[in-house]
Amino acid sequence: MLDQIALLAAVTVLGVLEQAYFALQVIYARRKYSVSPPDTAGPPEFERVFRAQANCSEYFPIFVSVLWVAGLFFQQGVAAVCGLLYLYARYQYFQGYRLSAHGRLEPMYFSAKVLWILIGLSMAGLLGHFLSLNSFVGRMEIPSKLQLLFRW
Amino acid sequence: MLDQIALLAAVTVLGVLEQAYFALQVIYARRKYSVSPPDTAGPPEFERVFRAQANCSEYFPIFVSVLWVAGLFFQQGVAAVCGLLYLYARYQYFQGYRLSAHGRLEPMYFSAKVLWILIGLSMAGLLGHFLSLNSFVGRMEIPSKLQLLFRW
Amino acid sequence: MLDQIALLAAVTVLGVLEQAYFALQVIYARRKYSVSPPDTAGPPEFERVFRAQANCSEYFPIFVSVLWVAGLFFQQGVAAVCGLLYLYARYQYFQGYRLSAHGRLEPMYFSAKVLWILIGLSMAGLLGHFLSLNSFVGRMEIPSKLQLLFRW
Repeated sequence: MLDQIALLAAVTVLGVLEQAYFALQVIYARRKYSVSPPDTAGPPEFERVFRAQANCSEYFPIFVSVLWVAGLFFQQGVAAVCGLLYLYARYQYFQGYRLSAHGRLEPMYFSAKVLWILIGLSMAGLLGHFLSLNSFVGRMEIPSKLQLLFRW
Repeated sequence: MLDQIALLAAVTVLGVLEQAYFALQVIYARRKYSVSPPDTAGPPEFERVFRAQANCSEYFPIFVSVLWVAGLFFQQGVAAVCGLLYLYARYQYFQGYRLSAHGRLEPMYFSAKVLWILIGLSMAGLLGHFLSLNSFVGRMEIPSKLQLLFRW
Repeated sequence: MLDQIALLAAVTVLGVLEQAYFALQVIYARRKYSVSPPDTAGPPEFERVFRAQANCSEYFPIFVSVLWVAGLFFQQGVAAVCGLLYLYARYQYFQGYRLSAHGRLEPMYFSAKVLWILIGLSMAGLLGHFLSLNSFVGRMEIPSKLQLLFRW
């Protein structure tokens, strides 16, 4: 059983490490620009780092959810590769946003695309699962090639 | 094994799609009211959309956690139906909050109730699991009807 | 199968209850200091409670992720005990932050340490899993004591 989730778990832990790195950057930025908690407003340089981290945190549970559903119902390896691409895009996003609001755009669009791919894989995997269940229960003769396409 | 989580996974992906919809609404509101990142302050119309999305994001991992625990330890179908009700309540919450701060209240209370039901189902399922483990290990003669009630 | 995750699920539900408690404290603080949604700025007493809850929410999905990976790949009981320590540290953090910005520091450092331990256990568990896979497939003769150390 653990074999079917080991890569997903490894990518998840890598994502946690990335979030820890972002959180540390906010702490450093708080010191550098003298913005003490609970304040969150400050010079634009600080606010960009703060918002970059907040945005990545907000998307983390969404990313983990579709990573695991895609990995369990479509294919683990494909989902894990998409996961690595997403984490790379988020790193680029953070570094770009730190420099300028415009610098966040390109990696943001890329990370959104990867997320949509993971959502698509999740839906394809689930569809394949429910179709194959139906064909098993009701002998509905779904073309086996279509099933193969979805189940890979 | 996948049969026992397929409905939970489907509701989770639906929740991710809802979060994607909310995130897009914030982007549109940023354009409409000219609030450029990293700013998060603006006219009340923008701030309500921004806070609605932030609140839904904050609750997303909590929702997914109890959805899965309730589905695995109580009953998948019941948890999935509660999950759909929660996502519907969150949609109503977002649309209500967009119009006025007061408009968020009724669906917020409803979504909180559904969340408490999922928490209750999770606890009942876990209690049933631990009780049945004990009775198996220690022959503690827990009334089987009580177990049935919890395990359904 | 459920035996291997029951303690993790129980700690997760306890974490959800803690988040519900924090969310209620923010609602009470909003009433006490007359800060109506969608506003998030107010007197420092309100802002500290608001930020304490926001910070705990932000870390919740990270905590749940490493709790489960550590529990599945290292050892469930150890991960569950770390999880309880983390939730206790977060409670102390919230109460400390409510009183003063300085009061949050000590429990914050403690909760970060527990999180790093869970990350370490996750990585050790995953490493042990991949090493034992390799030794099985490729007969690479990894010292069995080292494997035992990792797999416990």
